[in-house]
Amino acid sequence: MELYKAHGEGNDFIVLPDPDGRIDLDAATVMALCDRRFGIGADGVLRLAPAEDAHVFMDYRNGGDGAPVEMCGNGVRVVARHLLAHGWITDEVLRIDTRAGVRTATVARDDEGRIASVTVDMGPPAFAPEALPFTGGEVRGGWHHLTIDGTDVALLPVSMGNPHAVLLCDDPDDAPVTTLGPVIERSSAFPKGTNVEFVAVRDAHTLDLRVWERGVGETMACGTGVCGAVAALTAAGHLDVGVDVTVRVPGGTLVAAWGGGPDDPVLLTGPAEQVATITLDPDWAARNGLASLLDT
Amino acid sequence: MELYKAHGEGNDFIVLPDPDGRIDLDAATVMALCDRRFGIGADGVLRLAPAEDAHVFMDYRNGGDGAPVEMCGNGVRVVARHLLAHGWITDEVLRIDTRAGVRTATVARDDEGRIASVTVDMGPPAFAPEALPFTGGEVRGGWHHLTIDGTDVALLPVSMGNPHAVLLCDDPDDAPVTTLGPVIERSSAFPKGTNVEFVAVRDAHTLDLRVWERGVGETMACGTGVCGAVAALTAAGHLDVGVDVTVRVPGGTLVAAWGGGPDDPVLLTGPAEQVATITLDPDWAARNGLASLLDT
Repeated sequence: MELYKAHGEGNDFIVLPDPDGRIDLDAATVMALCDRRFGIGADGVLRLAPAEDAHVFMDYRNGGDGAPVEMCGNGVRVVARHLLAHGWITDEVLRIDTRAGVRTATVARDDEGRIASVTVDMGPPAFAPEALPFTGGEVRGGWHHLTIDGTDVALLPVSMGNPHAVLLCDDPDDAPVTTLGPVIERSSAFPKGTNVEFVAVRDAHTLDLRVWERGVGETMACGTGVCGAVAALTAAGHLDVGVDVTVRVPGGTLVAAWGGGPDDPVLLTGPAEQVATITLDPDWAARNGLASLLDT
Repeated sequence: MELYKAHGEGNDFIVLPDPDGRIDLDAATVMALCDRRFGIGADGVLRLAPAEDAHVFMDYRNGGDGAPVEMCGNGVRVVARHLLAHGWITDEVLRIDTRAGVRTATVARDDEGRIASVTVDMGPPAFAPEALPFTGGEVRGGWHHLTIDGTDVALLPVSMGNPHAVLLCDDPDDAPVTTLGPVIERSSAFPKGTNVEFVAVRDAHTLDLRVWERGVGETMACGTGVCGAVAALTAAGHLDVGVDVTVRVPGGTLVAAWGGGPDDPVLLTGPAEQVATITLDPDWAARNGLASLLDT
């Protein structure tokens, strides 16, 4: 069985094709594959499974704890690229099912016909309190305030299928991403946990952003985090409505746009690259309880 | 062309077979391959090249800066396992040439004939000042003293083909590996830089150890660091002479023994595992300036 290593702006994945839907992924398997020193290494696993009303079901599990994740914007791009590049499908509009619903994707090609970028319809954002399990904090001027270690933290809770908390800062390079991030992730205000975005607004169509991903830690680029930040900061009046917003993340640059209406989807554009094809060593697989994976 | 991901107790490598000696590795290639998010990811690359008076030449480059490294004990184990498991050679005593000279290796097999551990003759240690580019500090009672940020730091400089500075601490878990390590690495006392070992002596044949590797950062297990620590602390009277010393590192457990004589080699025993076979994506290789690697 062949696996693939791929990434979207440094958010990296092991792609595990399962066209017959026979692979039963458990958390230990995901963590063994994603271990960066004893395994292959990645932020998570993307299992490509059969879907009823879509080309594929994207079964995304994160590498930190092996748990299923609702949605991953970079993952959708990587899946779209994989399906086209490996000839699974030839349609130019791809329908990718996720735990947060079906997402559609289109690609732009370069002069030589290679996939240069993928644009994903990430669906409409949903704001607290209606659509997000955010249960605490005082609301002032649209911002939700939490008290953490005696300090007031103002954030915008937003869902892109998965939960996000968007914070403003002067410069993400100096922001307490790895210290405050995990505290907010596990705050009782977010009973299902949350991703946390630290964002600086440079102008009405440019953001700098770092993200703390729930269950993973800091990552190079979080697609849903970029979408959540653009939607929340558009709604809060910090960004122009409906324009392409350039979002600089540690792994590179993504572009997102949101029309501002409750049913308008956020469109996320960025690259997706395959690095290599991976064939697991049978002894390694057996030692790590993955032998059944090789039989499929 | 096929590459391999392998590790020795979490010190992980990309193995690059080059039996005809045609691959010209540059630093950018090594760094692109070893990048954990945009590439495959590893501590370094082991190119297996032809040798005159040995079975193979181990061309080890570290992933942090792509530079050639004299010697790597875990790398030698991984190379020995690779040569036997892939049928390059069938001799039970392997001769592996390195920039620090030829090392011999033997393997122990389990009941099913699989390679369970590899023992490497790492050559004799060499002590400062004769054999190590250590140019500063006061010597008291066999220990070399440096003043760093106004604090006295006592260390044992030792060479295993590459330079090491061995420090005692109460518990490596609490030691300033990632802060003091890089300062000592770049201290003017070590004009060629140094690896830095933080070691707690538990009894006369048991150590706990963490290592800061020159040009890499903290790693899970450093074979030459384990050998250097055992040799230096045996010479300093902290360990029994000539016994198997168990060295617990973050990645697992290694065993080293040194007879105490100036020509006695340090014998290092530990596991070596192959994780997977890697086939680079041609587009990725081209984008990263590695296309020539695929032509070989």
